[in-house]
Amino acid sequence: MKVVIIGASGYSGAELASLVIKHPQLTLAGCYVSEQSLDKGKLLSDLYPEHLGLLEYPLQPLTEPAFQAIDKDADYVCLCTDHKVSVELAPRFLAMDKKVFDLSGGFRLASNTDYERYYGFTHQHPTLLAEAVYGLAEWNSAAIAKAQLIAVAGCYPTAALNALKPLQQAGLLATQPVIINAVSGVTGAGRKANVGSHFCEVSLAPYGLFNHRHSPEIAQQLGHKVLFTPHLGNFSRGILETIYVQLKPDVSSAQVANAYQLLAEQPLIRLLGDKIPSIKGVANQPYVDIAWQQQGEQLIVIVAIDNLLKGAAGQALQCINLTMGLPHQTGLVGAG
Amino acid sequence: MKVVIIGASGYSGAELASLVIKHPQLTLAGCYVSEQSLDKGKLLSDLYPEHLGLLEYPLQPLTEPAFQAIDKDADYVCLCTDHKVSVELAPRFLAMDKKVFDLSGGFRLASNTDYERYYGFTHQHPTLLAEAVYGLAEWNSAAIAKAQLIAVAGCYPTAALNALKPLQQAGLLATQPVIINAVSGVTGAGRKANVGSHFCEVSLAPYGLFNHRHSPEIAQQLGHKVLFTPHLGNFSRGILETIYVQLKPDVSSAQVANAYQLLAEQPLIRLLGDKIPSIKGVANQPYVDIAWQQQGEQLIVIVAIDNLLKGAAGQALQCINLTMGLPHQTGLVGAG
Amino acid sequence: MKVVIIGASGYSGAELASLVIKHPQLTLAGCYVSEQSLDKGKLLSDLYPEHLGLLEYPLQPLTEPAFQAIDKDADYVCLCTDHKVSVELAPRFLAMDKKVFDLSGGFRLASNTDYERYYGFTHQHPTLLAEAVYGLAEWNSAAIAKAQLIAVAGCYPTAALNALKPLQQAGLLATQPVIINAVSGVTGAGRKANVGSHFCEVSLAPYGLFNHRHSPEIAQQLGHKVLFTPHLGNFSRGILETIYVQLKPDVSSAQVANAYQLLAEQPLIRLLGDKIPSIKGVANQPYVDIAWQQQGEQLIVIVAIDNLLKGAAGQALQCINLTMGLPHQTGLVGAG
Amino acid sequence: MKVVIIGASGYSGAELASLVIKHPQLTLAGCYVSEQSLDKGKLLSDLYPEHLGLLEYPLQPLTEPAFQAIDKDADYVCLCTDHKVSVELAPRFLAMDKKVFDLSGGFRLASNTDYERYYGFTHQHPTLLAEAVYGLAEWNSAAIAKAQLIAVAGCYPTAALNALKPLQQAGLLATQPVIINAVSGVTGAGRKANVGSHFCEVSLAPYGLFNHRHSPEIAQQLGHKVLFTPHLGNFSRGILETIYVQLKPDVSSAQVANAYQLLAEQPLIRLLGDKIPSIKGVANQPYVDIAWQQQGEQLIVIVAIDNLLKGAAGQALQCINLTMGLPHQTGLVGAG
Repeated sequence: MKVVIIGASGYSGAELASLVIKHPQLTLAGCYVSEQSLDKGKLLSDLYPEHLGLLEYPLQPLTEPAFQAIDKDADYVCLCTDHKVSVELAPRFLAMDKKVFDLSGGFRLASNTDYERYYGFTHQHPTLLAEAVYGLAEWNSAAIAKAQLIAVAGCYPTAALNALKPLQQAGLLATQPVIINAVSGVTGAGRKANVGSHFCEVSLAPYGLFNHRHSPEIAQQLGHKVLFTPHLGNFSRGILETIYVQLKPDVSSAQVANAYQLLAEQPLIRLLGDKIPSIKGVANQPYVDIAWQQQGEQLIVIVAIDNLLKGAAGQALQCINLTMGLPHQTGLVGAG
Repeated sequence: MKVVIIGASGYSGAELASLVIKHPQLTLAGCYVSEQSLDKGKLLSDLYPEHLGLLEYPLQPLTEPAFQAIDKDADYVCLCTDHKVSVELAPRFLAMDKKVFDLSGGFRLASNTDYERYYGFTHQHPTLLAEAVYGLAEWNSAAIAKAQLIAVAGCYPTAALNALKPLQQAGLLATQPVIINAVSGVTGAGRKANVGSHFCEVSLAPYGLFNHRHSPEIAQQLGHKVLFTPHLGNFSRGILETIYVQLKPDVSSAQVANAYQLLAEQPLIRLLGDKIPSIKGVANQPYVDIAWQQQGEQLIVIVAIDNLLKGAAGQALQCINLTMGLPHQTGLVGAG
Repeated sequence: MKVVIIGASGYSGAELASLVIKHPQLTLAGCYVSEQSLDKGKLLSDLYPEHLGLLEYPLQPLTEPAFQAIDKDADYVCLCTDHKVSVELAPRFLAMDKKVFDLSGGFRLASNTDYERYYGFTHQHPTLLAEAVYGLAEWNSAAIAKAQLIAVAGCYPTAALNALKPLQQAGLLATQPVIINAVSGVTGAGRKANVGSHFCEVSLAPYGLFNHRHSPEIAQQLGHKVLFTPHLGNFSRGILETIYVQLKPDVSSAQVANAYQLLAEQPLIRLLGDKIPSIKGVANQPYVDIAWQQQGEQLIVIVAIDNLLKGAAGQALQCINLTMGLPHQTGLVGAG
Repeated sequence: MKVVIIGASGYSGAELASLVIKHPQLTLAGCYVSEQSLDKGKLLSDLYPEHLGLLEYPLQPLTEPAFQAIDKDADYVCLCTDHKVSVELAPRFLAMDKKVFDLSGGFRLASNTDYERYYGFTHQHPTLLAEAVYGLAEWNSAAIAKAQLIAVAGCYPTAALNALKPLQQAGLLATQPVIINAVSGVTGAGRKANVGSHFCEVSLAPYGLFNHRHSPEIAQQLGHKVLFTPHLGNFSRGILETIYVQLKPDVSSAQVANAYQLLAEQPLIRLLGDKIPSIKGVANQPYVDIAWQQQGEQLIVIVAIDNLLKGAAGQALQCINLTMGLPHQTGLVGAG
C-alpha cells in the first residue's frame, strides 16, 4: 500500500515517515508540507539528521498538482497537520476515495459544540464527526479495519483510555471523576519554535487546567467524568500519567486484576505487575506500559507511552495495520 | 551565633553551610561527617566546586574530641544526618544545652508507632517526639522561637502544608482525602551513589505509593487525610506538587482567596495569582510559590519549592532566624 | 548611581537587572525594550518567574519620551541589545554624557573591515571603535575606570583571554595558532525562539567553524593567532573551553605557574590547581575557573565561566564597579 | 549462530543482547554476570524496562556449570566485562574453540608495557595480543572475518580512527600531533553507581588529560601521534569528537575529499558534506557521521557515533556479521 504524509516536517509526521519506510508492506509515496512552509523543498533528513540515509524524501508543497499526484498514486493519506487544516483536507481526500488517517484532533470529538468550546473554531464538516472512527486500536479494531476516516486517538487519551477502559467496562469505577495527572515531553508541543519550548525555558509545570482539549476526548471515549491536568516536563519524548481512581465499595484486588485481563494478550500493551512505568521505559518504544496499586477503595494506575509512537505515529501505523488485516505490531516490534 | 553542621557533605548540609557563611549574624563553627565517611578530611569545596573560595571548610570526623569542641564552641547544631543518626545524636547535643535543628525525619512524627511503620526502626527517644517543635516556619513561628529541638519540616510536606493549611484552617476542605501528586528533583534522593540516581537511569516515575514517610507527616500536621504520591523527575533541584482538593459544597472563589490571605504577607511565600508555579521558578530560590484554580467544588492547588532551600536548608535557616528574633528572610533574600 | 538597561528582556539584560537590584550602591532606574517588542509592558518577572518579587519592573518601550527620561534620570546606560542596535544607540547616549556599557559586539573589534567580514554590516560609527575601551575587567581596569564607552568583552573571549593572556604576556606561546575548543550553554544563543534552541533540537555540535565573530576578538586582544571552534551544548548556562597551547621549547612548569601568578590575587579568578574546571562549578557563579596541565611543549588550559555572569552581566557590573572605584566583586560575591 | 554474552548487565552487554535478539541469523544462547553480581538471577528486562517483553533473559552467574553449558551450546562468546576479567576469560573460551569478541580493552594494545602504563595491570596473556585482531570493522574486515579473538575497537578510537585513517593513508597529515577533543555521554562511564555519574554531579568537564588509555590505542592504530582529551558530557549516549589536523603544505580540498572517498560506500559510515555531525544525529543510530572543513593547512574533522552502538555493541555485531560473511549492516539498519 502506498502512503502519503501531509505535514511530514513535524515530529509526528517525521516519526510516521520513518515507520512507513521500515514497514514490510508499505511504501512511502510522498511527504508534503503546506505551500507556505519554510521547510518546503528540504529533505526530511535535513531536518532530522538521525534519519540521514533513511529519509531522503523531499518535503513537497501541497499544491494542486500535488493533490493530483496523491489522487493518482496514494492509497492511504495520513494527516499530521493542524486540527483546522485536517478538517479542511480530510473531505477532499475522502472524495478521492482514499483512506484518511488524521493524527490531529479534527475528528475526535462528538459535536461541533465541543470544537467551539475546546478548539476555538467552528467545525466545517460536522457530519463527518459521526462517520469518523476513533482510532484507539486496542478498543476499536473492528471499526477501524473498515473505516474510511480514522481519527487517530490523542496522545494523552491513548494513555488514559487504555488505563481506564478496563475498569470502566468492568463496572468498577465509583461515580466521582477520575483524576488524571499527566506529564508530557516537549515533542508533544510540536517542533515550531516558540519561547515555551526554548531549551532554557522548559521546566516542569502544569498547563491547560480544567480546559485542555483532551479532557472531553477522554471523557467521551471513557463514558466517565475525568479531571485531567497535563504538565510539560523537561524531556523530549514520553507521557506519564498517574491516575487516581475511586473504586466502588468492596472492589477486590482480584476484580481489578481481572478487569485488566482484557488487555493481557494485546501485543502493544505491557502490564507491568509490581514494576512501575516510567518515561525511560517507553521512550522510543511502541508500547503502553500499565501498572496499578490499590489500597481499599483507592486505586492508583500508572501508565506511560511514547507520545510520538503509541501516542501518534505508532498508533496511526497500528490502525493502518488493522485496515490491511495485519497484526497490530507489524512494523513496530522486532525486525519484522 | 556559632553554627555547626553534622552531615555537611550531603546536599542539604552543604547548602546550609553556604547559607550560614553568607548570613550576616552567623558563624560557621565546624563541618562534620561520620567517622567512617570517605569524605573525611576533604574540604567542602572539594565536593562542591561551585563553592570554591567560599566553603574552604574541612569535613571533620565526628570523634569524641569533636563532640567536646562542639560543646565548647557552638550555639546551634544542625543535623543533616540520616534519620536514625539524628535520633541518636540529638539528645547528646540537647544535653549540652545546644539548640538542635534536625533536618532529618527523626523527630517529625507523632509516635513511635509511626516510626516503626514508616521508617522501619524503633525510636530510641520517643519522649522527645512531644518536645520537638515542628519546623514549618510560617505556621509555627512562636513555638520555633522558643524551642530547644526543632524538627525541620520535610521537603514534600513543606510544599503541601503551605498549600493546604490555609484551606484547612478556613474549614473549606470536604472530608475526602486530598490528592497530592508530587515530583522531586534528584538532589532529594541524596548524594550517595546508587543506580537509581545514575545519570542514565533517572527518569520520571512514581515511587513509594501509599506508604511514603511524608504521608503521615503531612496528614498529622494538616489534620486531614491525604493521598500522597511522590515521583522522581529528571532535574536536580525542586519540587512541584499538583494538589487535587475537593471543597465543601458552595465554597466560593472569594472564600478560597480569603483563606490564602493568611500567607499574603509572609516574605518567603509568593502567591502567584494567575501565573503557574514551575520548577524553573523556584530552583535556587528560597520561596514557596503557590497558585490555584477552581471549578465548582474542585480546586487544583499548584505549589513549588526548591527542595534544598525551602525544603531543607533554607527552612532550617529560617527557623534559626526565628530563634534569634530576626526576620524570616534574613540571609535568604537579597544582599542582606 | 542610576542604571538603565536597554534590551532588558533578554537573558543578559535580565541577569544584569537582577544584579543591579542587589548591588549596594546602584539603583535600577529603568528597563527598556524596543518599541516593537512583544514583551513591551510586561513586568520582567512575568518573563523570569524566578525573579518574582525582585524584578517587578515594567519593560518600557524605548520611545522618544523614554530617551528624555533616561537623559534626565540615568547615570549609566547598559546596552543588552543586538550588535547593530548598540551601534546606533551608543552615540546617542554618549551625547547625553552617559557612561555606556555595551554588552553586544558593536564596539569590540578594531575596524570597520572586521565588522563587514564578521558581523555582516558596515559600522556606522567607526571612529568610536578607537574610543571604546575593551571591557575585560582584570586586564584593563585603569582604562575602564575612566572610559565613557565600554565594550564589555564577549563571553567566549572572556574565558579565552583570561586563560591565555598570562602565557602571552610571559612570552611563553610558540608561534602556532592556539586551538580553542569551546562549548556554550543555550542561553548564549539568546532567548528568541528558533528551532535551533528548541528543547528537542539542542544537542552537542560545533558551529561557526573558522568564522565565528569571537575569533578576531580573541586574536586582537591576545595578540596571537587562534583557531577558535565554538559548540552549542545541552545545558542552559556556562562555557567550557579546552585550550591546546604549543609552548616555546623548554618552557618549564614553573614558568607556566609563574605566568598565572598575575591572576592569583584577582577576586573573580579562581586558579584551581589540580582540580578541573567544569560547567557545574561555574554555573550561577561570577568567577573564571582556570586550570592547566603540561606535557613537554604541550599545554592544555581549561577554563570555565558562566556566560551570563562573567561572560556578560557579571563582567558589565564589574566594569561598573571599576568606574565607581569599588572592588571588582562588589555585588557579585557574598552578601555584601 | 548461538551467542552468549558475559557481563550482560552493563550498558554494552544489554545493548548487544537487544541487537542479537533482533538479528535474523543469531540466537541469544545465554546472558551471564559474575558470580558476585547483585543482579544475578534478575531478568535483563528488570534492569532495562525499555526491553520488557524482549529481553526476558535471566542473568546467570558464571559458574563452572555455566562454562560447561557455554562450551556445549555457544558458537560466539562476547565479553562485555572489565578489562582484567576479559584477559582472564578469553583464553578459556578460546580453548573451547569459540570465537571471542572482547568489548573491553583487554586485547587492544600492542604490548604488556602499554597495559602496565595505561591500564595499571600486568597482562597475563601477552602472547594473545599479537593474535587478537583489532575489531575496527571498516578497516580490518578481512582479518576480522577469519579471527578467533577480536578486540572490538574502543568507543573513542572508533570515532577518531574512522575520521583520521583516510587522511593518514592518503599521506596528508603533517608531522604534528593531531588534537582530538572528545565528549562522551555518561553511558560511557558504565552503569555502576558512583558519585561521578550521579545525576546531579554530571557536568561537562575534561578528564584523563594526557593519559587516557584510548590515547595509545588511537596512536597505534593510526600510526600517528595524537593528543587526545576526553570529556564527560551531560547526556546519556553518544560521542562527539572535534579533531584539529595540521595538513601537509598545499594539500587541496580535493585531496581531502578524495581521501574520504575510501569510506563513501561503507554502509555504516555517513559522510555529511556541509552538514555538521551532532550527538542528536547519532544517538541510537549505528553510524559514524563524519564531516570536515578546511582553511589552508588547518583541517577540522567532526565525527560522531553512539558510544553503545558503533562504539561498542553495534561494532561487535558488525564484526560478528563479518565472520559470518554477512553485510556489515545486517541487524543494524532497517527492518530487513
